[in-house]
Amino acid sequence: MQYIEMSKEELLTLKSELDARYTEAKAKGLKLDMSRGKPSASQLNVSLDMLDCINSSSDLKSENGTDCRNYGVLDGIDEAKKLMADMMNTTPEHIIVYGNASLNIMYDQISRAYTHGLLGSTPWCKLDKIKFLCPAPGYDRHFAITERFGFEMITIPMTENGPDMDMVEQYVNNDAAVKGIWCVPKYSNPQGYTYSDETVKRMAALKPAAEDFRLFWDNAYIIHDLYDDKKDEVLDIISECEKAGNPDMVFEFASTSKVSFPGSGIAAMATSVANIADVKKQLTVQTIGHDKINQLRHVRYFKDINGLKAHMKKHADAMRPKFEATLEVLEKELGGLGIGSWTKPNGGYFISFESMEGCAKAIVAKCKEAGVTLTGAGAAFPYGKDPKDSNIRIAPSFPTPEEMALAADLFALCVKLVSVEKILENK
Amino acid sequence: MQYIEMSKEELLTLKSELDARYTEAKAKGLKLDMSRGKPSASQLNVSLDMLDCINSSSDLKSENGTDCRNYGVLDGIDEAKKLMADMMNTTPEHIIVYGNASLNIMYDQISRAYTHGLLGSTPWCKLDKIKFLCPAPGYDRHFAITERFGFEMITIPMTENGPDMDMVEQYVNNDAAVKGIWCVPKYSNPQGYTYSDETVKRMAALKPAAEDFRLFWDNAYIIHDLYDDKKDEVLDIISECEKAGNPDMVFEFASTSKVSFPGSGIAAMATSVANIADVKKQLTVQTIGHDKINQLRHVRYFKDINGLKAHMKKHADAMRPKFEATLEVLEKELGGLGIGSWTKPNGGYFISFESMEGCAKAIVAKCKEAGVTLTGAGAAFPYGKDPKDSNIRIAPSFPTPEEMALAADLFALCVKLVSVEKILENK
Repeated sequence: MQYIEMSKEELLTLKSELDARYTEAKAKGLKLDMSRGKPSASQLNVSLDMLDCINSSSDLKSENGTDCRNYGVLDGIDEAKKLMADMMNTTPEHIIVYGNASLNIMYDQISRAYTHGLLGSTPWCKLDKIKFLCPAPGYDRHFAITERFGFEMITIPMTENGPDMDMVEQYVNNDAAVKGIWCVPKYSNPQGYTYSDETVKRMAALKPAAEDFRLFWDNAYIIHDLYDDKKDEVLDIISECEKAGNPDMVFEFASTSKVSFPGSGIAAMATSVANIADVKKQLTVQTIGHDKINQLRHVRYFKDINGLKAHMKKHADAMRPKFEATLEVLEKELGGLGIGSWTKPNGGYFISFESMEGCAKAIVAKCKEAGVTLTGAGAAFPYGKDPKDSNIRIAPSFPTPEEMALAADLFALCVKLVSVEKILENK
Repeated sequence: MQYIEMSKEELLTLKSELDARYTEAKAKGLKLDMSRGKPSASQLNVSLDMLDCINSSSDLKSENGTDCRNYGVLDGIDEAKKLMADMMNTTPEHIIVYGNASLNIMYDQISRAYTHGLLGSTPWCKLDKIKFLCPAPGYDRHFAITERFGFEMITIPMTENGPDMDMVEQYVNNDAAVKGIWCVPKYSNPQGYTYSDETVKRMAALKPAAEDFRLFWDNAYIIHDLYDDKKDEVLDIISECEKAGNPDMVFEFASTSKVSFPGSGIAAMATSVANIADVKKQLTVQTIGHDKINQLRHVRYFKDINGLKAHMKKHADAMRPKFEATLEVLEKELGGLGIGSWTKPNGGYFISFESMEGCAKAIVAKCKEAGVTLTGAGAAFPYGKDPKDSNIRIAPSFPTPEEMALAADLFALCVKLVSVEKILENK
């Protein structure tokens, strides 16, 4: 029976049962963290052998003879470019290999646009108003960058096929103050949605009012499938933009943070040859080069895209049981109650939960009180404000499957409790 | 006999001898690079064992239990902070450990000041005019950053005791557009001069017209001594600024680029606690954290400051013969001729040569023609323009001592040849 159909008395009875269960649950003293898309320790073990790939007896020269121990090579050693290009479904001439984090590359592109402009256009710091489109729910750290620079963030609703493209086109093609859009095209954070071919093609075919409008295409989960037989595919944005006559319109990002080690991976940007030349003018002032030994470590370990993909299956094996345990509990505990819905992604790091309106903050607080930490409610929206207060991001990666089942159990209990209270308010 | 005292005939005879020797030298087909302060391959071997410090069996937890393989820790693991603090003669609360390059940290501070301002002051991008003081000869990559941001660079003459402090005080204390000064306080690039205690104290005691004026204190060679018994010492700028009531006035930089591996080292900034809080507000938007496994690798290998210093003796053993070979040739070939002078530093990576006025470019070109690459003449000055065209940076680190002797020999020959031609012009 859906909660909404219950009588006041039924609800009050239910509430007192749930209250009792909640008191019991609190007494268990859980301490579980589902707040961030952080791999678990056992998942990190999957990559441990990489640390043996480079030692004092290794040949530390790259394929073209560069001594990777010394200064130089601004944009990455050739074989690292090739590996990242293959991962990103593009070719090495589109690639710059950076340091350990794609977030830093994104910040860097925004900061460079702000200080120096893109391909000769006016630096954004000289403009009165900059706007960014923010498909939401989305990734809080994206929004943190644009908020920090004082850009106005415009929320674009997400659908199962990606951002609402009518709205995107409306803004981008008519307002020259709109300079960018944040996109996580595959297994989006937090919903796990993948942009449809139509969405990608419409993105690539935008006719921006601003010559320096860019797609900030964060392909964070490009090879992060959970299942062998159910893999989402997303079109290559670099070639789609080329085909649409907008070759310079996209900055695409990826990293091995969730492939090898978060913080000790390698990250890359893919973009047009013209953009690469433009970026390098700045990059050569910023650094002499990134960590080539770590680039070599990655290449020697993964060898090629097949090695990468085989490695990702091991990650999937670690992740799948956690997703399944969570989804199983959600279905069992909340299915048919009409008090929430959730996504069932084929990859990525998150499950997105939609509670009844006005309940997300209270659910997260109740979980916290009983020892289960979730991402702060609203975090997935610009300025941290979820207009409906309904979205909750569940990150199943860090706990074990057993812990995830426990955590999901508590989560479901809190959803029920807060929902009952909400419904009672209006009875 | 000094060249200047020779008769025209003597000079012409000399010139024809030198021409003949130069033709011979060219025929040797030398290929030597003294252009950058790059360690040699054998010097890099000194650090090779570091690559065995971390492997798949290592405990990858930091002292406080942090799993260094995972996300997190914005400002560096505690033991890396301690190591860098000890290296920089300060304490860990003043330290942020960054990624692989101090140049990048410097860029980052300038860029942050430009986009967001320092400690609440007006972002530099909102100001009409920014000026930077550039003690010269200095480090070309410093000047490249300030040039890229369009700051006016003001050349400050260097002395054996550091920058001309009368001039520095004059500018800094009276002109609010002056926002910074580039300093390499120990074994300056390229002269190898070390700031005297008086210079450091006067720097710390500046009374800037601009509240957001900063010393950009690049302590690149802080532990890079050549001799056990002749070590320059430079006062700790952090505590000197504190004592002078200017705790927030300095950003100090250092790295292990020339200690472990260039490109694969760790870099740090030291500054006041207030500045650190200010920086972290931005840094948390830029990144989740730097490479903690590499931080751990460094700490496990060097253990502590004593380990670092013992390691630097091995570097000194590799470097000293190159410096000595160069200085020996310069003394033997050019001593007493009155056509050039050069520095004899106790550490760092460079020897600075002063030719007769108007000769540096021609000397560098002549060397190049015969297969010896030097740093471009003028590179050590703002905008690449040496007003006297007399400064040449010699970087002895990359070639072997034998190659350095050969290269110095050719260099001396080119100095003679160009000087004779110059003197003849005026006879």
